[in-house]
Amino acid sequence: MNNEKSESEITLRPVGIIRSEIKKPVLTAGKDGIEMREELAEAVKKMRESRETISELVVDDAYEGILDGIDDFSHILVLYWAHMVPVERRSLARVHPMGRREFPLVGIFATCSPARPNPLLATVVELAERDGNILKVRGLDAVDGSPLIDIKPYNSAFYPAGEVRVSEWMERIHREFS
Amino acid sequence: MNNEKSESEITLRPVGIIRSEIKKPVLTAGKDGIEMREELAEAVKKMRESRETISELVVDDAYEGILDGIDDFSHILVLYWAHMVPVERRSLARVHPMGRREFPLVGIFATCSPARPNPLLATVVELAERDGNILKVRGLDAVDGSPLIDIKPYNSAFYPAGEVRVSEWMERIHREFS
Repeated sequence: MNNEKSESEITLRPVGIIRSEIKKPVLTAGKDGIEMREELAEAVKKMRESRETISELVVDDAYEGILDGIDDFSHILVLYWAHMVPVERRSLARVHPMGRREFPLVGIFATCSPARPNPLLATVVELAERDGNILKVRGLDAVDGSPLIDIKPYNSAFYPAGEVRVSEWMERIHREFS
Repeated sequence: MNNEKSESEITLRPVGIIRSEIKKPVLTAGKDGIEMREELAEAVKKMRESRETISELVVDDAYEGILDGIDDFSHILVLYWAHMVPVERRSLARVHPMGRREFPLVGIFATCSPARPNPLLATVVELAERDGNILKVRGLDAVDGSPLIDIKPYNSAFYPAGEVRVSEWMERIHREFS
């Protein structure tokens, strides 16, 4: 077993903020796991709409120049903080994915639940436009006001595409939402 | 322009540690940008070797159960902290990618440089084996001792594959290293 202690704390400094029409997350973290705020049909509708939503990544003025050359990429990886997950909800170990009892109880690291020890979310989105320190992106599921942590260029060559196996419950969610 | 202030600080708590044969990063963050520690040919050789390297993600015992069900995925996204980047090197705005003067000077957010405001790195790797709280993964470029921040299941369906455009310099690096 592991008896080493990990470094105890790391400090992140947000580099900006996300501006979006999405004002509330689709999932909420309840006492016994995650729950959908609405009926499944409504959640599916909202998630589909969010694929076309344009959001703004507003980078703080202090980082002048840090976006130069990003226009050469059609897609970027956005890391942001799920600030609406309360601290006391970060200690869940297992959940039913999307709070749905018909799915097995699995570990948080086997899910994309925002309620996790470090609620850092990573999404690849299309870069629609750059306007100075603001990037307009298409399809970001972040809630308005989420702290922006990092932006990286996306290159599909570094991500496996064939030969990828996922769980049955995730296959099913993907079929429902696509 | 953006006059809003971002949240000033966020605390991450590492969930474990990475054990790897890789003891030093290929790139170092120098005063005027990043530099390669070795000649290009040697760096290319090391990066190619690292694709087959098996590393261990050792999750702290406190997170019992958090990995359950991860075996149903062939690949995972690993978020880790580049702990060898000194604080004073996180304020670079622009670099020549890989420290190579033949490439244009571009913003850090247009590169994968570890020397960035929040040196959080994200890599998709193959999950080779799970042994309790330890995941053995293939192809992780993290340096030994890197704090582990998060693990997420990888689903290629959520990542664009066709229609992706990248910069010329990144195309060239990709050709050299593949």
